[in-house]
Amino acid sequence: MSILVVGSVAYDDLETPAGKRERALGGAATHFATAASFFTDVKLVGVVGNDFDDKHINFLKSRNICLKGLEINQNGKTFYWKGQYGKDLNDAKNLITDLGVFADFKPKLPEEYKSCDYLFLACIHPELQLDVLRQVHKPKLVVCDTREIWLNNKLEDVKKVVAKTDLLMINDSEARLLTGEHNLVKAADIILTMGPKTLVIKRGEHGAMLFVDGDIFYVPAMPLREVKDPTGAGDTFAGGFLGYIAKADKVDDLTLRRAMVAGSAMASFNVEDFSLDRLRTLTWKDIESRMQAFKQLSHFEL
Amino acid sequence: MSILVVGSVAYDDLETPAGKRERALGGAATHFATAASFFTDVKLVGVVGNDFDDKHINFLKSRNICLKGLEINQNGKTFYWKGQYGKDLNDAKNLITDLGVFADFKPKLPEEYKSCDYLFLACIHPELQLDVLRQVHKPKLVVCDTREIWLNNKLEDVKKVVAKTDLLMINDSEARLLTGEHNLVKAADIILTMGPKTLVIKRGEHGAMLFVDGDIFYVPAMPLREVKDPTGAGDTFAGGFLGYIAKADKVDDLTLRRAMVAGSAMASFNVEDFSLDRLRTLTWKDIESRMQAFKQLSHFEL
Repeated sequence: MSILVVGSVAYDDLETPAGKRERALGGAATHFATAASFFTDVKLVGVVGNDFDDKHINFLKSRNICLKGLEINQNGKTFYWKGQYGKDLNDAKNLITDLGVFADFKPKLPEEYKSCDYLFLACIHPELQLDVLRQVHKPKLVVCDTREIWLNNKLEDVKKVVAKTDLLMINDSEARLLTGEHNLVKAADIILTMGPKTLVIKRGEHGAMLFVDGDIFYVPAMPLREVKDPTGAGDTFAGGFLGYIAKADKVDDLTLRRAMVAGSAMASFNVEDFSLDRLRTLTWKDIESRMQAFKQLSHFEL
Repeated sequence: MSILVVGSVAYDDLETPAGKRERALGGAATHFATAASFFTDVKLVGVVGNDFDDKHINFLKSRNICLKGLEINQNGKTFYWKGQYGKDLNDAKNLITDLGVFADFKPKLPEEYKSCDYLFLACIHPELQLDVLRQVHKPKLVVCDTREIWLNNKLEDVKKVVAKTDLLMINDSEARLLTGEHNLVKAADIILTMGPKTLVIKRGEHGAMLFVDGDIFYVPAMPLREVKDPTGAGDTFAGGFLGYIAKADKVDDLTLRRAMVAGSAMASFNVEDFSLDRLRTLTWKDIESRMQAFKQLSHFEL
């Protein structure tokens, strides 16, 4: 089954202890779509400006990502972000954010996108997320992300989105902001009364947690000798996660746990190189082998 | 097989978002010994002052902990610590530390302690750790902890201890201080060239990692709806971990992984109440059930 993703496509200038990159391909929808494309067909809705290089269009097409919903706005520049990471790599210092054509982004879904089965709303403005939800015809699963800026400034709108979400996928600080509860298990209890049946809390280098049906599943992040660039790891996780689910076309406990591992595997590859460069050479065999490595990392016999 | 632990026995004044306790039983050796006592016989070497209440002696004896090595120094007071935790519970604010009789502590091992099979050196001064290592006769497994103050001020002494250690058990910031390497996998590579064959890195609410024979095992911390008091969680983890190993009397991969889970289970109980109060009513059935819960938390099928 195919996935529709709505979110940013961007240029990133990146500086980490491992080096620098300028005008690297970035954006939540880009990372998500590339990761998900290893599992299933992906349709992307987003916008780029008059400076967006054809080579990136060609790369996304080479991943079989449908770009019919990617608007090319000739009146401005592509979303641009400049970030710098210290050695702990958990938080980027935002040096420049220039929304460019993204400031006026109004997602317009091509007709054939509206009957999508799996929908991922990346961390765009909650009003835009609601707008997309009004356009689609009852997807099997609506997965939403958000970000701190909307939780701090548009909390009521975020709550409206959450009420219409089947599976919320946010990070730990966002779960705390959304609920006002510091303890993550209690925060999850609250979120699961707000609409979603399922919750995934991403914890960066500490892994991710799945909350569903009173059950908790925890997958650690793969310990790596080198993390070159964590940018987009969360969206890559989401792409691997939802890609796995859409491919399996079911949302049972077994599939959800496997999807958590698939997402963690994709995220672990993504951070091994700048931008989404590691995914350019990734093979299905690499993914299967990394998923097995997660078993070796976390299993034990009693 | 029995375990010998050398470390602090203390009085703690504790304040957390869940409440306050005054003159609660604390100390690294106390937490370790109590946790380990659920698995095997424990001998404790430490010192308390003239203010140490008989009821604590009786409690430790009720756990079958041998106190022949617990010196009662009538010339001063028991080690006293006052700490305050904010809502994130990861770091305590140290309000008062009064070493009392612990300042002059010189571990003297009763003769029959010297042939111990399993030795745990809690985070005492590295010179004292070396002194204990000179007294014992080739234990099967020497496990050591340390703390930031020694790494910052007595690094060369800590390295001498590490060189004589079979299994080092420290937290992530200590691993970074010991090696000067931020990446934990690389830090582990370095530590495993310094003497220990096995390394456990404790990560508080994010769980613990085992490094041995080129392999990494990660056990998350049990997500809990309420953490009342994290004091002593690391030492409780160590007690469950080494208790499990000493009971099994082997140090193979299967046992090490199970021991990581046993340690995590004990730590998860410890934080559910102040001081080591939860361990006072804990049963073997509780422990088995919590270890199974860790399987439910972290296992998946591919």
